[in-house]
Amino acid sequence: VELNVGLLGLGTVGAEVAERLLAKRERMAARTGVDLILRRVLVRDLERPRGIPTELISGQAEDILDDPSVQVVVEVMGGEEPARSYLERAIRSGKHVVTANKVVMAKHGPDLLELAGSKDVDVYFEAAVGGGIPLISTFKVDLIANEIESIAAVINGTTNYMLGRMASAGISFDEAVAEAQAAGYAEADPSADVDGFDAVYKLSILASIAFGARVHPDSVFREGIRAVEPLDFRYARELGYEIKLLAYSARPKGRIEARVHPAMIPLHHPLATVEGAFNAVQITGDLVGDVLLWGQGAGGRPTASAVVGDLLDVAHSIRKGSFNRVAMRFDADPAMLPMAEVRTKAYFRLRALDQPGVLAAVGTVFAEEGVSIASMIQKDSIEEGTAELVFTTHPASDAGLQKARGRIADLDQVKRVCAFLRVV
Amino acid sequence: VELNVGLLGLGTVGAEVAERLLAKRERMAARTGVDLILRRVLVRDLERPRGIPTELISGQAEDILDDPSVQVVVEVMGGEEPARSYLERAIRSGKHVVTANKVVMAKHGPDLLELAGSKDVDVYFEAAVGGGIPLISTFKVDLIANEIESIAAVINGTTNYMLGRMASAGISFDEAVAEAQAAGYAEADPSADVDGFDAVYKLSILASIAFGARVHPDSVFREGIRAVEPLDFRYARELGYEIKLLAYSARPKGRIEARVHPAMIPLHHPLATVEGAFNAVQITGDLVGDVLLWGQGAGGRPTASAVVGDLLDVAHSIRKGSFNRVAMRFDADPAMLPMAEVRTKAYFRLRALDQPGVLAAVGTVFAEEGVSIASMIQKDSIEEGTAELVFTTHPASDAGLQKARGRIADLDQVKRVCAFLRVV
Repeated sequence: VELNVGLLGLGTVGAEVAERLLAKRERMAARTGVDLILRRVLVRDLERPRGIPTELISGQAEDILDDPSVQVVVEVMGGEEPARSYLERAIRSGKHVVTANKVVMAKHGPDLLELAGSKDVDVYFEAAVGGGIPLISTFKVDLIANEIESIAAVINGTTNYMLGRMASAGISFDEAVAEAQAAGYAEADPSADVDGFDAVYKLSILASIAFGARVHPDSVFREGIRAVEPLDFRYARELGYEIKLLAYSARPKGRIEARVHPAMIPLHHPLATVEGAFNAVQITGDLVGDVLLWGQGAGGRPTASAVVGDLLDVAHSIRKGSFNRVAMRFDADPAMLPMAEVRTKAYFRLRALDQPGVLAAVGTVFAEEGVSIASMIQKDSIEEGTAELVFTTHPASDAGLQKARGRIADLDQVKRVCAFLRVV
Repeated sequence: VELNVGLLGLGTVGAEVAERLLAKRERMAARTGVDLILRRVLVRDLERPRGIPTELISGQAEDILDDPSVQVVVEVMGGEEPARSYLERAIRSGKHVVTANKVVMAKHGPDLLELAGSKDVDVYFEAAVGGGIPLISTFKVDLIANEIESIAAVINGTTNYMLGRMASAGISFDEAVAEAQAAGYAEADPSADVDGFDAVYKLSILASIAFGARVHPDSVFREGIRAVEPLDFRYARELGYEIKLLAYSARPKGRIEARVHPAMIPLHHPLATVEGAFNAVQITGDLVGDVLLWGQGAGGRPTASAVVGDLLDVAHSIRKGSFNRVAMRFDADPAMLPMAEVRTKAYFRLRALDQPGVLAAVGTVFAEEGVSIASMIQKDSIEEGTAELVFTTHPASDAGLQKARGRIADLDQVKRVCAFLRVV
């Protein structure tokens, strides 16, 4: 079976997709029985030299979207617009689409999937989350017999690299940003990664499929890693934890909990061992128990693995003349569990005056807010006349933890609440 | 869409499959749009009380295999026969089959798949390897754009549990067997696990799909864990390794390498952290890089997750009227790399007379067999007048390592080669 492919975008991912389609065409055809034919590639800058035949290059999206011979449109441009509009147009004209676009899929995925259903074409987006790690298909197909109980993930490679460097080299957040930029992991403006937006988009997609509900990115609690200080890594180690940017979703009692924030993860937890720019997603289902999927979550080649895998699957559908094999359903307006009601353990680090009564005052606040203390460490602070106090707590409502945090910061004997981290 | 299911076997896995089909029927139907109807269950002992309606129970396979209303046959009996014959009969009469049978799929999978292709029915076997971990579909679909370079796996939970206990509690192999039996992980006759047969079947299936070639279990090198002694765990720890039963396959230069044996795995390697009865499979593809899939590799519920997932996929195919979506091809007689030609690092532990010249003699043998020494430790032995020598080597041909092993054992100054382990 032949499949005529139009490619929107020739960046890191697009170049690897084009390379595989052009250089390995015969080899893949022999192995899979599918002949993937790259018809045209949309680029932004026509003048830039490319490693692919110039007759394939175009600066006009219409050359792909309006070409009736193109059966499937691959979108690897990134960003919300015009990518979303292109995808919609492609679907409306009866083309299948494959996208690596997490922003579009997080915000508009259910709409595009619904539209595709009405047009009897397929929307593939394995590449939108976790590079080549098979996540979408795992939820859609492999674990479909399960009620999914929770998803816990380290899903942003850039922050994981940064936190790893802060832990091992004792460097500051700013130094870690600079290193991640130098290593090609972070953008000039690192906000999408370090403020948690990227992880929120990915979690939104995974949770939507896992729970069959529209988990809009705006309804995901988001806190980035800017406030994490080198000292916290030392305490984490002492207490038996790693600090990771955690993406977590669950459905306790019918409401969906979804949150992205830095967290202390116990050393024996599988997510604690995810190093560098790798991603890992731990899925808990009522039958399967815990399953962990781990791999490179970004980069041209791993993402191209997912894109080309999706293309070959489109080809199988075309050969069989059968689309929308697994219909996905999304509860349009699911009940979300507000962050205030989430119950979690926590870690507080504060600097207090080195005088009697501090512990009593802090302890009283915790007790009044319903927060029970699990452990306490007191050390001399670098600042004369002050002491550093570290508390970990038993599970409490996030509202109670935040109130305690505010009230402790307001105590006369307390100079500053230096750190607050949730604990897994 | 409705799907009429016949179930062959009501053991640990069968009972969980039946439970899910009966107790969660409406719930699954609402979620997936598929109504799974359990029509009949074949059991060995009709007298034993079961938790399912007696009218569903039968002692005759014909009641399922010859019932035209049964659309899909689920085989969870285990063992080669009569399971294989039942599967063949079901396929011949136009029924789809779902099996959790690793022995049948390892030995006869390509034949059954070919037969099913000619009958236009589907054969599903996700449950045959790694319980609910999505492995078959990962190779068949998700990583299909890749040339698979290697598979490295800890794929037998029983031996992994035993090796873990030997490492942490310092107990002997026999004690570990007894513990694994008490914990319900090992059979009364533990040979299938401890001698590596189970891992060989699973690796045979994975390698066959990964490389599109019949990797028959008889052509997989196999060595079990009986010879591993408590002392080796101490040296492993000292040298920075864990000892695991490794299942490894790769295709260097067109020939397929496939082997199962205990191995020392560096502590930083993802497979080194796989604990207890868990399984993990690390797949390396030319695009995706390394991907690791981890979870419970056995047990009723995780395996039922895969079986029922497969059933729902069959139902989707029936709804679309389209089967054999992804055709698998198997090179019937692939070239295998003989174990003698495999290059690997190794660990030798030997007891030698505590007298001059031993090191020179051992070193000479290694040199003559082309084996280069990477590290050496010498310690007093528990046995009077002897010393314990531990060597690790650089990569060498397995033939050279075995020759060296034999010649060293024959040296006058050497009492015994106590241990030989390959090193990752």
